[in-house]
Amino acid sequence: MQTLGDMGEDAVVARVLKVLNQKDSVVVGPGDDCAVVDIGKADTYMLLKTDCLVQGIHYESDSSDPFRVGWKAVARVISDFSAMGGIADHLLVTIAMPPDTSIGYVENLYDGMQKCASFFDADICGGETSSVPIGSAAVISIAGTGSVEKRRLVSRSGGKSGDVIFVTGTLGGSIQGKHLDFTPRVAEARWLTENFKIGAMMDLSDGVACDLPRLAEASQCGYRIDPDMIPVNDGCDLHQALSDGEDYELLFAVDSQIADVVVKAWPKIFSATPLTKIGELCDPGGGDRFEEDGWQHFNS
Amino acid sequence: MQTLGDMGEDAVVARVLKVLNQKDSVVVGPGDDCAVVDIGKADTYMLLKTDCLVQGIHYESDSSDPFRVGWKAVARVISDFSAMGGIADHLLVTIAMPPDTSIGYVENLYDGMQKCASFFDADICGGETSSVPIGSAAVISIAGTGSVEKRRLVSRSGGKSGDVIFVTGTLGGSIQGKHLDFTPRVAEARWLTENFKIGAMMDLSDGVACDLPRLAEASQCGYRIDPDMIPVNDGCDLHQALSDGEDYELLFAVDSQIADVVVKAWPKIFSATPLTKIGELCDPGGGDRFEEDGWQHFNS
Repeated sequence: MQTLGDMGEDAVVARVLKVLNQKDSVVVGPGDDCAVVDIGKADTYMLLKTDCLVQGIHYESDSSDPFRVGWKAVARVISDFSAMGGIADHLLVTIAMPPDTSIGYVENLYDGMQKCASFFDADICGGETSSVPIGSAAVISIAGTGSVEKRRLVSRSGGKSGDVIFVTGTLGGSIQGKHLDFTPRVAEARWLTENFKIGAMMDLSDGVACDLPRLAEASQCGYRIDPDMIPVNDGCDLHQALSDGEDYELLFAVDSQIADVVVKAWPKIFSATPLTKIGELCDPGGGDRFEEDGWQHFNS
Repeated sequence: MQTLGDMGEDAVVARVLKVLNQKDSVVVGPGDDCAVVDIGKADTYMLLKTDCLVQGIHYESDSSDPFRVGWKAVARVISDFSAMGGIADHLLVTIAMPPDTSIGYVENLYDGMQKCASFFDADICGGETSSVPIGSAAVISIAGTGSVEKRRLVSRSGGKSGDVIFVTGTLGGSIQGKHLDFTPRVAEARWLTENFKIGAMMDLSDGVACDLPRLAEASQCGYRIDPDMIPVNDGCDLHQALSDGEDYELLFAVDSQIADVVVKAWPKIFSATPLTKIGELCDPGGGDRFEEDGWQHFNS
């Protein structure tokens, strides 16, 4: 019997996608940060996203402040909307928790979710609560709708050989606290997509070593990175910066002709946030190949 | 420390709602079968719904065919859309499962989800997969968008004193199998909302004894039921019919003036499905009060 643990997340997703059909109204389907749906509006698409946090996997029940867990649950979804160039509109919250959970814990959790939603002008407008058996891990799932102007839409698949690869911020060691407190790069992604033609973009949830190959493959490219250029967080080594995951920074590729313009303009707007060229896309089959993966569900 | 188990689902929901704000675009917020959102279209609203199935609560891992579990997961959401008078459009699937789950199980699960989605012309366009620790209950969450013509929209809150209360189908004993195989009452709800002004409607997920008080309260009414009129499934008693839950039938209230017209027209269209008057809404504070509840999460 082949299990999810044998296969790893990407292979599991590939298998289940074979079971699914797609309608014409779906502009971008499974495999990107969000689904993109044409709802008959002239200038905008609807974005759809679902995500979940599992106790003991994405947060610790004893050491993680529920307010921060709630913030993280919503921030992860907003980060995915921003990775497509868009913003969040309406959010739905599903919690499945053991009956011995305190109501105070749940109130603080929702307080963190509401704070993050309000900060990014999104609206929690519904949800579902269920019990899980005592001793089972709690699961918090956030689903939501967003919107993106058609001219701004960026997927993972629009990169081309020669494009310069950038990351925002610094990488590694998110488990020390950033993973619960990060601010999704909405302002940065909106500025990028307003002012430049971004070839491909995603947010770094599983680490560059895991996510860059995904972006390159979606763009039918290979990739080369310059390890010396990776912006490593204080106290971390290169391996951690590439593989820890949960950075929630933007990873994007732009035509080499405009890369220098982006580099020059960036610090005038986002002086406190580094923007770093870490490599380039190349022809498929060429370039580098990470030997270690970032965080992959099921087989890590 | 007050726990979720002490309080029960409705009280938990009431507490967390106090934490949440609502935007003007939300026409119907938390507390109904779906959220209703104005997305700037002339004739239709968007519906939003999230729901979840928990292993050991909503299905048994060893005895429940994963295809049927998948069907159920999607059918529950479609049933909620129909309870507002609408249809499903796009669905997102979140699964959180232990790494020792077989890929074959997951493929059959998705196969059942896709079958139900296709049957009702809905589209699974994205999702999320995560692991839970080995030994933890699996959680399957379906979130989705739907749509309803503004003229057709029905909520739980539009009933009034004197309205006749109907249920479709027969009630009780769903655990024998119906809970995994039911067909959401989409055709029935669409016909009702096309031809009649329905005061209030919801789907019966937790049983009449639990759900009717919710509908009556949302409509600021009391209720009277005639126990002899409850359509009890073969092999069940009245208590089971009122309290088992998971019937996924429609519960609705219509003005007494049109109730007889509905009763006469119904069997010409839905000859195989009973439609039964079970009581009426009355002034708040009056009427009956169920002594035993239907299925309530956390405190059952």
